[in-house]
Amino acid sequence: MILKFTVTASHQGLHEITSRIQQAVADSNATDGLCTVYIRHTSASLTIQENADPSARRDLERWLNRLVPEDDPIYTHTSEGPDDMPSHIKAILTQTSLSIPIMDGRLVLGTWQGIYLWEHRRHGAPRTIIIHILKDDTPTYEQCF
Amino acid sequence: MILKFTVTASHQGLHEITSRIQQAVADSNATDGLCTVYIRHTSASLTIQENADPSARRDLERWLNRLVPEDDPIYTHTSEGPDDMPSHIKAILTQTSLSIPIMDGRLVLGTWQGIYLWEHRRHGAPRTIIIHILKDDTPTYEQCF
Amino acid sequence: MILKFTVTASHQGLHEITSRIQQAVADSNATDGLCTVYIRHTSASLTIQENADPSARRDLERWLNRLVPEDDPIYTHTSEGPDDMPSHIKAILTQTSLSIPIMDGRLVLGTWQGIYLWEHRRHGAPRTIIIHILKDDTPTYEQCF
Repeated sequence: MILKFTVTASHQGLHEITSRIQQAVADSNATDGLCTVYIRHTSASLTIQENADPSARRDLERWLNRLVPEDDPIYTHTSEGPDDMPSHIKAILTQTSLSIPIMDGRLVLGTWQGIYLWEHRRHGAPRTIIIHILKDDTPTYEQCF
Repeated sequence: MILKFTVTASHQGLHEITSRIQQAVADSNATDGLCTVYIRHTSASLTIQENADPSARRDLERWLNRLVPEDDPIYTHTSEGPDDMPSHIKAILTQTSLSIPIMDGRLVLGTWQGIYLWEHRRHGAPRTIIIHILKDDTPTYEQCF
Repeated sequence: MILKFTVTASHQGLHEITSRIQQAVADSNATDGLCTVYIRHTSASLTIQENADPSARRDLERWLNRLVPEDDPIYTHTSEGPDDMPSHIKAILTQTSLSIPIMDGRLVLGTWQGIYLWEHRRHGAPRTIIIHILKDDTPTYEQCF
């Protein structure tokens, strides 16, 4: 099953999309399987990170903005603005696709894990995200080994 | 097939888990398919790296520790200790999930590739890793093109 | 379906392999499914990036070369040359595997997305890339939600 949705982030940074992906898994009626989340852009990306304390996300953003600042004289690809080239660099350092197993009808996310759209441009643009859900009809559970 | 196992690393750094994943593939009786390895944590991560010379792994750890040091004044998320925020940053720069094709009953790892749990906290905690194996019943091999 | 191909990049940097992957998808006759691209090396990697303006790729290469320079005194793994350890570091910061959904017989790449082999060694070596294509026989499309 393939679902497509569009998110427009209001500003640069991490925007949680976990509930949308969980809803897609629920709608698919998959008990077990594999969920792939894919973003069709090169100046925004995906990451799985701590969803409890907002200070962790703010620090992630500040750290990455310091590592990849705007107005670095190394950039020549500047025609689309000072936030364009940093966006591409941040995208290669994070993820374009995420693969998350499905068990008992839910993503196997850890207690503190959330799925995030990371908007790297200053002003959010509409971002298309594809969710692919593959059902697995012959699961066998084995705990620990 | 979904398997779950827990690893407790004794210290910060790269810990090889290749043989456990290969064992899961063998136990699944999958000849061909796709193996997804997923870690349910945001302060530890996964990576595929050189498994031959331990000096390469030591250098990876030293380099990443220098890029993301403890006690950086930029951090505000510090209530869980000085190694907490660096752990989240190291996790976003590496992987939470890995997808590895299975061929002839084995992961298609290269000769020098190993699968690693990267513990980013100073003191290892129990880390849950999920292995999802999808069998592919209609494989066709084609060499090069 | 599993396909294997070898690319030898003539020099360090980003080398587009999109058309080879699209060809493999076409040859598989998959209408819907999941394509996994896997590189069997630890000193070269994969990334999905902007395929329009070459200046973006040149800036990515220059930025990463500055972040991970050769001849850093931190390296002890130097027996294979000054470009060996930087290659491993660049590989952990980018991707070893990519998962891309297939819809209507094509990869769901965005308009400006290309798939790249990132050769991190100064002189390109033959690099083996595995393409795994999983057909999904029971797709359901749903637009937006």
